[in-house]
Amino acid sequence: MDRTVYMPKPVGTLEDPTTTLRDLMLSSDLTFLMEAHDGISSAIAAQAGFKGLWASGLSISSAIGYRDANEASWTDVVGVVERMADASGLPILVDGDTGFGNFNNARIVARKLKQRGASGICLEDKGFPKMNSFVGDRQPLADIDEFSGRLSAVRDTTGPDFVLVARTEALIADHSLDEALVRAHAYAKAGADAILIHSRKSVPDEILAFSKEWNNKLPVMIVPTKYYRTPVAEYRAAAISTVIWANHNMRAAISAMRQVCDRIIQEESIAGIEGEVATLDELFDLMNYGELAVAEDKYLPQAAHGHE
Amino acid sequence: MDRTVYMPKPVGTLEDPTTTLRDLMLSSDLTFLMEAHDGISSAIAAQAGFKGLWASGLSISSAIGYRDANEASWTDVVGVVERMADASGLPILVDGDTGFGNFNNARIVARKLKQRGASGICLEDKGFPKMNSFVGDRQPLADIDEFSGRLSAVRDTTGPDFVLVARTEALIADHSLDEALVRAHAYAKAGADAILIHSRKSVPDEILAFSKEWNNKLPVMIVPTKYYRTPVAEYRAAAISTVIWANHNMRAAISAMRQVCDRIIQEESIAGIEGEVATLDELFDLMNYGELAVAEDKYLPQAAHGHE
Amino acid sequence: MDRTVYMPKPVGTLEDPTTTLRDLMLSSDLTFLMEAHDGISSAIAAQAGFKGLWASGLSISSAIGYRDANEASWTDVVGVVERMADASGLPILVDGDTGFGNFNNARIVARKLKQRGASGICLEDKGFPKMNSFVGDRQPLADIDEFSGRLSAVRDTTGPDFVLVARTEALIADHSLDEALVRAHAYAKAGADAILIHSRKSVPDEILAFSKEWNNKLPVMIVPTKYYRTPVAEYRAAAISTVIWANHNMRAAISAMRQVCDRIIQEESIAGIEGEVATLDELFDLMNYGELAVAEDKYLPQAAHGHE
Amino acid sequence: MDRTVYMPKPVGTLEDPTTTLRDLMLSSDLTFLMEAHDGISSAIAAQAGFKGLWASGLSISSAIGYRDANEASWTDVVGVVERMADASGLPILVDGDTGFGNFNNARIVARKLKQRGASGICLEDKGFPKMNSFVGDRQPLADIDEFSGRLSAVRDTTGPDFVLVARTEALIADHSLDEALVRAHAYAKAGADAILIHSRKSVPDEILAFSKEWNNKLPVMIVPTKYYRTPVAEYRAAAISTVIWANHNMRAAISAMRQVCDRIIQEESIAGIEGEVATLDELFDLMNYGELAVAEDKYLPQAAHGHE
Repeated sequence: MDRTVYMPKPVGTLEDPTTTLRDLMLSSDLTFLMEAHDGISSAIAAQAGFKGLWASGLSISSAIGYRDANEASWTDVVGVVERMADASGLPILVDGDTGFGNFNNARIVARKLKQRGASGICLEDKGFPKMNSFVGDRQPLADIDEFSGRLSAVRDTTGPDFVLVARTEALIADHSLDEALVRAHAYAKAGADAILIHSRKSVPDEILAFSKEWNNKLPVMIVPTKYYRTPVAEYRAAAISTVIWANHNMRAAISAMRQVCDRIIQEESIAGIEGEVATLDELFDLMNYGELAVAEDKYLPQAAHGHE
Repeated sequence: MDRTVYMPKPVGTLEDPTTTLRDLMLSSDLTFLMEAHDGISSAIAAQAGFKGLWASGLSISSAIGYRDANEASWTDVVGVVERMADASGLPILVDGDTGFGNFNNARIVARKLKQRGASGICLEDKGFPKMNSFVGDRQPLADIDEFSGRLSAVRDTTGPDFVLVARTEALIADHSLDEALVRAHAYAKAGADAILIHSRKSVPDEILAFSKEWNNKLPVMIVPTKYYRTPVAEYRAAAISTVIWANHNMRAAISAMRQVCDRIIQEESIAGIEGEVATLDELFDLMNYGELAVAEDKYLPQAAHGHE
Repeated sequence: MDRTVYMPKPVGTLEDPTTTLRDLMLSSDLTFLMEAHDGISSAIAAQAGFKGLWASGLSISSAIGYRDANEASWTDVVGVVERMADASGLPILVDGDTGFGNFNNARIVARKLKQRGASGICLEDKGFPKMNSFVGDRQPLADIDEFSGRLSAVRDTTGPDFVLVARTEALIADHSLDEALVRAHAYAKAGADAILIHSRKSVPDEILAFSKEWNNKLPVMIVPTKYYRTPVAEYRAAAISTVIWANHNMRAAISAMRQVCDRIIQEESIAGIEGEVATLDELFDLMNYGELAVAEDKYLPQAAHGHE
Repeated sequence: MDRTVYMPKPVGTLEDPTTTLRDLMLSSDLTFLMEAHDGISSAIAAQAGFKGLWASGLSISSAIGYRDANEASWTDVVGVVERMADASGLPILVDGDTGFGNFNNARIVARKLKQRGASGICLEDKGFPKMNSFVGDRQPLADIDEFSGRLSAVRDTTGPDFVLVARTEALIADHSLDEALVRAHAYAKAGADAILIHSRKSVPDEILAFSKEWNNKLPVMIVPTKYYRTPVAEYRAAAISTVIWANHNMRAAISAMRQVCDRIIQEESIAGIEGEVATLDELFDLMNYGELAVAEDKYLPQAAHGHE
């Protein structure tokens, strides 16, 4: 990607990086999606070399100042994803939570996400409003048929190129491996392109067991937030399609902002931290201020230049 | 501030922390405002102990994925400030850039900022669209009378309790100290509550010279981004009212996210960074998930509980 | 209300017309709330002399181009209500549908509506997403305890001055008068300020029967869309508090726009309709362009005037 | 257009009706664009048979409750246009006012309008903030080079299929026909696809004089709001490309809502107006509730149906 013209680039070149997300998901090598939650985190992940983004519901909610319980409206989320797409140019898989209501809400959200530049949506088999998977125990799962209807409605509305990922919370909710498999098969039949199997164990055993039984009927995605110690070699061996690093930009930002706030209060000075934070020039580079300077030379008459 | 009930708290207790901002600005001790740019950075600054926030135009633009040249719309900015107010409960001085147009745009923006929970607005004496003060040289200043009209319109629209800060870019644009003083006096007459004198020198000489001549006709605010080495004792000695740490949460976050992205790509693992980023529990605490659990016990019938 | 300064007026005078809505609702005479769905319809209703507005979910959805099935997000609705409040200065009772989710969503929506200038919210005892009451038969009602939790959460969050109306769809869903009464009593206990009893019969018999049994334990509101022939004298006799004309601005606008579109297509000319549509001067007057001209004289230096 | 599936239809069929707008503009017959300002007015115009829409700045501002002086933000306008496109499926030429700032703002707005489904933008040669052309006298025109830069920037950003209309206010501002022609030639060179020549005379003389001299170097668009008596045969004879009926849906709606409000207040009843306003069934049909019923049968399990 040519970072020198990333913003604002001709609309045509921004449209539909969806094939790219599908290609990544289907490629023989393991794919990594990096969490981002706003324009700048997306630009940073793109500049670092990630090939795709995970628009995390938890991170986006937190950035806005809401809890991961569908406090933010669906249009809030769509608006954030638009800025992520524009600022990064990367394919984005959006954490669509439970679809923001029934099949009708889900298909409207999916259409709008596609319009704003997202490449896919992931829906999980719980009700609305959702609660973060790591909060509380045994959250009730959605009825299989009803959830399959949500998937089909999205499938029929967005067309075949938009990636539809079905996430089952069966294991998170302490159901059996069989329940997870039954659900995955139903969701495949309803039109899902991939299955995200979630777990909150600190080891990947149940994930790998699922993967073995599932036998790649559709690509498998995982979120190793809790079983973070597992080497990715194991996922490659298990033919997992995609690993989502689901909240690490946000957690890094929180940690850094806390430290800086604490130090500034304690030291009553920014002299000590100056060398540890990004420079303004780095920021200007990340946001491509150079393009704006070039454009001013091109489009502004000399007399109208605001800043020589 | 009682962090255990910060969200969602009764609306009544959120309204008008404007007296607090005015009190801070007028207090005999030096006041510090910390930059924030979204809900989570605001919550972090509040938890760290800052008494007030600076809603930076540069940081907010960057977070959204825009450049600091009024690419984001005024409603985009108002929306972000609303989330900052709700997530922090702190008084917020908003970087209103040049007012987003003429006097009429400025007064509409100010009214809306007040409605959403901001305690004050800072307007700078340049035109629309603005360009960041640290980009390019000798940006043209606004006509004094026209800019004074913008200030008066805001003053008349928002009422006396909303804090109106006039920022002069005279020194930034290489004008004389006299020009800065002439402007400051005009802006005071137009209804400003405080003067923000900006400089991009690496030493505070011109700021201190201004302060001496100005003699505290109105409180003085400064932004020591470039002259960061100066000890705050000098500002106390000069009877400066308020120091704005203008972009350090954003710069800390950028730096941290870059490092984490680079490491994850290099290490193909999150195991190495797990100990260096905030935990999910820290995030849940920051966003007050505890309040939601308590509220569920109170307002949800047992059978409807989503997650025991 | 002084229409000559209605926009943009000092924020102070706009805040909290909530007492007015409560006063209207509690007054001994019958109160009428007129449907509006955007800025201009609200300004028109205010200019015509209505004392309060009904922000109809059906009308607002339609204006935006959505169906009355919670297709619009809650922030979409809050944004429209804000413009209605600003353009009219009137107290507004907002059709909050079923609360946009559970108790937590309901209280967030209510807080935001209050912040944007609404005076009250009406919640109905169905689930999310809702479907318009006049579409289909026997829509399922919410569990009484769960819905009461939604009401209590709003009550506790918005404070006592914000008006909370509980709307029961019991009769609409073909339940008995007893069921409606049981629900009304439960909702009163949960903190409602008034009961809206809805019916889709073409005569008001069941409404009047409810009213008689209820005996004004709390004020009663009605929506005579289907039983439109009943003279209001009957409601006065029954001590009904408030009549909501729920969609008539929207239906009038639709009818007029259809006729104008048809005629322009048929006549290939606007000459024929010129005398039947509002003049531009009427529009300028309605939106108070006079205030802007006065403000330009006051705040713009002579040289900067855009249009003498 | 198949109205039975207009919403929500597969995204693919919604994208880029831009060729249609270009085809209409270039066709040998006179094209008519009908003003619309929200979802429902757009759906009505589509159902009546119009082939394209004019998203009027005046009407949209008024609907939102703002004045036509760039009080609404550019994102407000983009949001409205999105709903118009979704609700109508028609090509839309958007009144982009003066571009919401400089060349950079103009190109961002144009990109976003294209993304949301608009087919073209019209920019006028004045500054920001603009004032409605029919308010005040001799509004200052933009510098030709600077405005040409705005046009080129939009041209380069949106790609060749998005229609770019340059509107000159030369005649409105009492400049000569020569000035109008000089500007039109400059704007053509800068990349405009068509010229909109505006006049506030009650006869079309100066428009026709322009058209004769211009000799169709590019298609000509006109807005006969003030010279409404002229038969369209004269425009056909002059080989005008497109006639914009610029505010007649809004003016029809205002007139109808005023009458209905006045009558309801006077009659304390809706019985008298019931036969004169659209029925709810008409509204449900216009918004395609039938599609939702069909979709519920398809995607909702029987048990989950909300309303049989």
